[in-house]
Amino acid sequence: MIHDPNKVYIFDTTLRDGEQVPGCQLDTNQKIEIAKSLEFLGVDVIEAGFPVSSPGDFNSVIELSKAVKDPIICALTRANKNDIDVAADALRFAKRPRIHTGIGASDMHIKTKFNSTREDILERGVEAVRYAKKYVEDVEFYAEDAGRADIEFLAKMVEAVIAAGATVVNIPDTNGYCLPDQYGSKILYLKENVKNIHKAIISVHCHNDLGLATANSIAGLQNGARQVECTVNGIGERAGNTSMEEVVMILKTHKSLNLHTNINTQGFYNISRHVSEQMNMLVQPNKAIVGGNAFSHSSGIHQDGFLKNRENYEIIKPEDVGFPSAAIVLTARSGRHALKHHLDRLGHTLDKDNLDIVYKQFLVLADSKQGIDDHDLNQLVALNLV
Amino acid sequence: MIHDPNKVYIFDTTLRDGEQVPGCQLDTNQKIEIAKSLEFLGVDVIEAGFPVSSPGDFNSVIELSKAVKDPIICALTRANKNDIDVAADALRFAKRPRIHTGIGASDMHIKTKFNSTREDILERGVEAVRYAKKYVEDVEFYAEDAGRADIEFLAKMVEAVIAAGATVVNIPDTNGYCLPDQYGSKILYLKENVKNIHKAIISVHCHNDLGLATANSIAGLQNGARQVECTVNGIGERAGNTSMEEVVMILKTHKSLNLHTNINTQGFYNISRHVSEQMNMLVQPNKAIVGGNAFSHSSGIHQDGFLKNRENYEIIKPEDVGFPSAAIVLTARSGRHALKHHLDRLGHTLDKDNLDIVYKQFLVLADSKQGIDDHDLNQLVALNLV
Repeated sequence: MIHDPNKVYIFDTTLRDGEQVPGCQLDTNQKIEIAKSLEFLGVDVIEAGFPVSSPGDFNSVIELSKAVKDPIICALTRANKNDIDVAADALRFAKRPRIHTGIGASDMHIKTKFNSTREDILERGVEAVRYAKKYVEDVEFYAEDAGRADIEFLAKMVEAVIAAGATVVNIPDTNGYCLPDQYGSKILYLKENVKNIHKAIISVHCHNDLGLATANSIAGLQNGARQVECTVNGIGERAGNTSMEEVVMILKTHKSLNLHTNINTQGFYNISRHVSEQMNMLVQPNKAIVGGNAFSHSSGIHQDGFLKNRENYEIIKPEDVGFPSAAIVLTARSGRHALKHHLDRLGHTLDKDNLDIVYKQFLVLADSKQGIDDHDLNQLVALNLV
Repeated sequence: MIHDPNKVYIFDTTLRDGEQVPGCQLDTNQKIEIAKSLEFLGVDVIEAGFPVSSPGDFNSVIELSKAVKDPIICALTRANKNDIDVAADALRFAKRPRIHTGIGASDMHIKTKFNSTREDILERGVEAVRYAKKYVEDVEFYAEDAGRADIEFLAKMVEAVIAAGATVVNIPDTNGYCLPDQYGSKILYLKENVKNIHKAIISVHCHNDLGLATANSIAGLQNGARQVECTVNGIGERAGNTSMEEVVMILKTHKSLNLHTNINTQGFYNISRHVSEQMNMLVQPNKAIVGGNAFSHSSGIHQDGFLKNRENYEIIKPEDVGFPSAAIVLTARSGRHALKHHLDRLGHTLDKDNLDIVYKQFLVLADSKQGIDDHDLNQLVALNLV
């Protein structure tokens, strides 16, 4: 496989690992709309679903395959023939299909989840890759719970699945357990000890249970991985997956890493709010990159330093991630649209009825004091809604 | 200073760096209540305010000094006599007072914020420490924007302020710019090159602009720092500070680090929700450790693995961080209290009126379907409120 050695592939799993969260379920039309936004953003791979899991997921993979042109469309399976048959069927309209198959790699998963042995599990993984290769050229293999797997066994498994044709090998920290130096060392070990590793791309798939998903993904990239599995706003099972916007902006900000992506970062704010609305998953104000306060300077010391030189307290320009300007001043003369603009900017997504309620109270307040600031807006929303 | 070499001091700045965020302002009584919760949680230091900045902050430091017994009470200043005079006055009732003074250390801050030179800034830092020592024994020095400072100058500055009496040296990544390996290297450099470093504790103070605050703090501890400056829920200016609950649970989960804190981790959930309510700062469902979904297993694969062996997908027990049990089943026979229990668990904090509205709709829904799950509850809240 020939590819730019400094390019990092962005594999978005908002619609698979993200969408399986309680309360986040989307219908196919909603998924199509998000997939188109992801394509516009420039992601390389869209994981569109787990076709065998439900008719809805099956159908979504079909419809997303039709709706999207540039990104690879990826479908998840377990390591068995039926899952792979169903995934291949769901991918039949994809211009660039990928099957993502795999099996548990840690002894805990091998013993207590599969009641099996390392040898048997390795063989099932290899068989799954071989079988998937009958349908598609592009087969990604995941070694579930790799974060806690024996590193020598993991290397053996990775070598075997690459020999069987895997084009991408995914090393998930399924439980969000690893520290960055530990996770980075695992990737480096594979890079240095798996003989055929140059024939595949190493992918990082991290979870955020200890708040380290982004750092672990970066540690993986620093040690040779070249694909990141991530979601918009870091949504996903439990504490979520790696935040796409965080990883991409780290690569963009730290030129010394000499890594780049295909992402149009100015689309981050809009897709963040769109996914948040569609999935009813709030983005907290102090979320990095896309939180409502991410670029708000509040303390006197900081405001003073900021006014003297913006770079004293700003390493990313808000406009680089599409953050709406705070330049529109709110007064009692402001309309609903201006109010909505600022509420959106602060992360408050209100439906029409609630906007009406808040707008009426906003007018009363704006009449009684000079200048409505973010504090006032947060209070208005807080008093009325949650 | 004699101390356990494996103890990590937890320095909470929820009431200073956290409270300065738009919409987060608290009155003194609210601060006292949170400070008492922090004391109960077992934090070592409470940064109570920046006394010269406002009469409210001045008064809060006085009242918190009276209200709290065990933790050190810390007051922030800039490197000038008036700030330090006012801070010392505000700390007069503290059983264990600390003055936290400092100045910019990066060339960018030195030139564009202070319009000064390295030599002058270093001298002002040293003078401030000497002056603060007239009032209190325990003086912490912060080298603002240390994350972007020249490392040799930073080492020189740290050595000079320790010689002047600083007991703690704070190396802030003010702009959340560093990568974990970079930040760790800075701490290691200081540990190895500052001759009198054994006379002070190195403190890490990280910001989350790139989503790396927790990872950077851990990297600092791995390289010799022994105090972490952090906030509940990671609140703070812009994308916030380091999350206390994340750092503490990493140390607790990774025994191999051989570091421990004094924190009673079972208090995390309650203090998280209390701070969130008081400050109107929502905690997103996918927040690590304290988010509403942090321990929710949703996909079929995960639920299956979880039921076979909880540790397949769980590295922290929810009860270890005080997470409410999901064992109470909701039906049309459930009362408001049971509903509130589950809404709280999911991160939805409703006032009485809104709880009444949602409760009525909950009863209608519970009559029409078997079993109300988290998805239903999230939908009910989303439809009605935000």
